[in-house]
Amino acid sequence: MAPHNVRWGIMATGWIASVFVKDLLRDPNVRGVSDVSHTVVAVASSSSKSRAEDFISDTGIPTPCAAYGSYEDLVADPNVDVVYVATPHSHHFQNVMLAFEATKHVLCEKAFTVNAAQAKILCETAKKKNLFLMEAVWTRYFPLSVQIRGLIQNGTIGEVLRVLADNSFGDDIEERWGTSHRMVNKDLAGGALLDLGIYSLTWVFQTLYHTLPRESRKPPSRISSHMSLYHLTGADEATSILLTFPTSTPSNFPHPGESQAVAMTHLRVSTNADDKPIQPSIRIQGTKGEIQVYGPAFRPERYRVVLKGDGEAREVECPFPGEGKGMYWEADEVARCLRDGKLESDSLPWEESIVIMEVMDEVRRQGGLTYPKNIESTVYPTPL
Amino acid sequence: MAPHNVRWGIMATGWIASVFVKDLLRDPNVRGVSDVSHTVVAVASSSSKSRAEDFISDTGIPTPCAAYGSYEDLVADPNVDVVYVATPHSHHFQNVMLAFEATKHVLCEKAFTVNAAQAKILCETAKKKNLFLMEAVWTRYFPLSVQIRGLIQNGTIGEVLRVLADNSFGDDIEERWGTSHRMVNKDLAGGALLDLGIYSLTWVFQTLYHTLPRESRKPPSRISSHMSLYHLTGADEATSILLTFPTSTPSNFPHPGESQAVAMTHLRVSTNADDKPIQPSIRIQGTKGEIQVYGPAFRPERYRVVLKGDGEAREVECPFPGEGKGMYWEADEVARCLRDGKLESDSLPWEESIVIMEVMDEVRRQGGLTYPKNIESTVYPTPL
Repeated sequence: MAPHNVRWGIMATGWIASVFVKDLLRDPNVRGVSDVSHTVVAVASSSSKSRAEDFISDTGIPTPCAAYGSYEDLVADPNVDVVYVATPHSHHFQNVMLAFEATKHVLCEKAFTVNAAQAKILCETAKKKNLFLMEAVWTRYFPLSVQIRGLIQNGTIGEVLRVLADNSFGDDIEERWGTSHRMVNKDLAGGALLDLGIYSLTWVFQTLYHTLPRESRKPPSRISSHMSLYHLTGADEATSILLTFPTSTPSNFPHPGESQAVAMTHLRVSTNADDKPIQPSIRIQGTKGEIQVYGPAFRPERYRVVLKGDGEAREVECPFPGEGKGMYWEADEVARCLRDGKLESDSLPWEESIVIMEVMDEVRRQGGLTYPKNIESTVYPTPL
Repeated sequence: MAPHNVRWGIMATGWIASVFVKDLLRDPNVRGVSDVSHTVVAVASSSSKSRAEDFISDTGIPTPCAAYGSYEDLVADPNVDVVYVATPHSHHFQNVMLAFEATKHVLCEKAFTVNAAQAKILCETAKKKNLFLMEAVWTRYFPLSVQIRGLIQNGTIGEVLRVLADNSFGDDIEERWGTSHRMVNKDLAGGALLDLGIYSLTWVFQTLYHTLPRESRKPPSRISSHMSLYHLTGADEATSILLTFPTSTPSNFPHPGESQAVAMTHLRVSTNADDKPIQPSIRIQGTKGEIQVYGPAFRPERYRVVLKGDGEAREVECPFPGEGKGMYWEADEVARCLRDGKLESDSLPWEESIVIMEVMDEVRRQGGLTYPKNIESTVYPTPL
C-alpha cells in the first residue's frame, strides 16, 4: 500500500523551520517508516516572498513548492494539508488561529502558546472546526522517549517517585543574547522557562503523568518555583520548579504514593559544564532503580537503566537515522493522525499541553514574570 | 611542643558514638596532625553503667576511662573537658543544656536541635557561660570540603549560580525502618529532613553562603519546599527544597547576582541507584565550570573540577587516612578551638547553624510536619 502522504505548508523561515524541513525531506525508509510520507508544498515568510524562495533553495525542497510573502497566502493555499507553525511563541496563538480560519490542520512549535488561556482556545477551536492540532514537542516522539515510557509502565524501575530534569545552557548572556534576541526579549515571550524549561517539564510530564492511564492522570498538587530575572530585560534567566504529583507510576504501590519532580533551566550555567554529555540531563528514579538520560533534554541520544543491586547498568544508544535531527518522528505522528482522522495525538493530548501551560502560568506568577498584554491576549486577531 | 590534648566525655553509646570514638583513638600523626591530640576519659549510657562499660571495651578505649549510667554523672566528671553529645536530635537541647549547667564545653551531633529556637538558646547560653559549642557537621572539616570552599573563593569555576545537593537512600522503608526507629519516629524528631537533608543543606550553605566574607553572608531570600510524609508515622520520607540566595559567590559579577540551590533527600529512592558513586551527589555550578562531588553527601571521597572548554576534568581523590571514617577532623577542630580559647568554630559559626535550623523550621512549616511539644520545647529541664 502506498504510504499516506501529507502536504506541508511551512510558516516562518527561521532556524527551527529549516531543521524541520530538512528532516521532512529525508527518506522515511531510512528510519524504518513506510506507512507515511511527506511533501513540502509551500513556504511563507512574513517579511518577503524572496525570503521564502531563498529558504526553499537553501533547504533543497524539490519543486514545485510555492513561496509566499505572507502567512495569509500560505494558509489559503489549497495544496496545503497541514501548517507547521515555526514562529516565535509570542505569535503562536495568532498564527494558529489564522490557519484554523482557513481550515488548515496545524503542528505548532513549543512553547505551545504564551499562556494556558490561549492554549485552551486553540484546542476548543480545533475541536469545533474538526481540525488537527499538535504541539511540536519533538522529543516525545523519539524512539528513546517511547522506550523509556514503556520501561516505566512495565515497572522496570519500580514505583517512580522522583524525576530530576534539567535543560540549561551556560552562556555569557549579556554577550550572547544582548537584549533584543528572542531568548531574552519579553516582547517575544522570551526567557529560559518557555524556551528551554518546557523540555524539563516535558520530561517530568511524560514520565510521571503521561505513563499513567489517561483517567488516572492528575495535575500536580503542588507547584513551587524560583525565578531569577535577567537584569537587562526582566525575562527569566534561571528557573527551578518543584512539582508534587498526587500519584506515582505505574501505581503498584500497596499504599497511596506521590512523586516529586525538579524541573530546571538556566541560561548562565550548563547541564554539562564541558559540553560532553557525561552527566545525565534527566534522572527518573524509582524504587527498583533509575533511568538516566544523556544528551541535552531536547535531543538525548542515550539512556542507561541502572537497577539496584549488583547488575551492570544497561546502556542503550538511540541514534538519529539518516543524519536526521529527530524532527521527522513528530512529522510521522502528524501524518498518521491525519490519515486516521484524529484531531489530537495520543502522545501529547491537548489536555496535557494545557496542563503544562497552566504549570508555566503558575511558575511565571510566582516569579513575577509578565509579558506585554498583546502577546498574552486571547483576542483574535490582535496585531502583534 | 607537646600537642594540645583534649579529654572527651562521650554522651550516648549508639552507632555514631562508636564511629566517633574509634576515630578519636586513631593516631593524629597518620592524618598529618601533630598540634592536637585526644583522650577519651569517660563514657555514659543513660540506660546503665554496664552498657557504658561494654562500649568502652568494644571500641577499645584505653584505661582509665570512667563508665557512667547517667548523663548527670558524665557532665559532673572533673576530668572531662568537652562532652560529645551523640543522642537522638530530639534530645540535643536538653542534653547540651545539662552539659552547660555543669560548665562543660560541647560538640553536639547534627541535626543541631529540633528547631531554631532551641539552637538560639544553646548559643546564647554558651556565650553567657563562656563555653565552647559546635554542631558536629563532620563533613565541613574534611580536607575535601576545605579545598572546595577554597576553589569557589578563588573563582576557579566563576560565579557560582546553582548548587544541586542530594542525600537520598533508597530503602523499603516499611521493611527497613518500621514505625519506631529513630529515622521515622516523630517522637524522636524522625524523618528524612533532619537526619539526611541536613547534609544537602550543609553543602548548599558551605558553598553558597559560607564562602562569602562573613559580613556579606545573607540568608536565603526565598525558601520553597515539598514534603512527602510517610504514611505510617507522618515523618517526612522525601523532601525537596528550593533556595534562592540574594548574592552569588565569589561576588565578582559586574551586576547583582543571585544563586539558586536544590537540596534533596529521600528515603525511597537513592542518590546512586546501584550504590556505586557514579553520579555526583553534589554539583556546584558556576559560570566557568562545575565542581562535582562523588560519594554520599555526608562522606564524599572524590571530586572533579570540570571547566568549560576543551580541558580534561581534574579529578581529586580525598581518602581517609588511617582507615578513619573522617570524624577525627571535626574533633581536631574542637581541640584547636579549645586550645585557642574560642567559643565557636569559624568553619560553622553559631549564626550559620541557626540560619540552617531556621530553613528547616520553614521547610517543616510548609510541609506540615510538626513534632510533639516536649521535643520542640525550649524549657529546660523538660522530661523527655
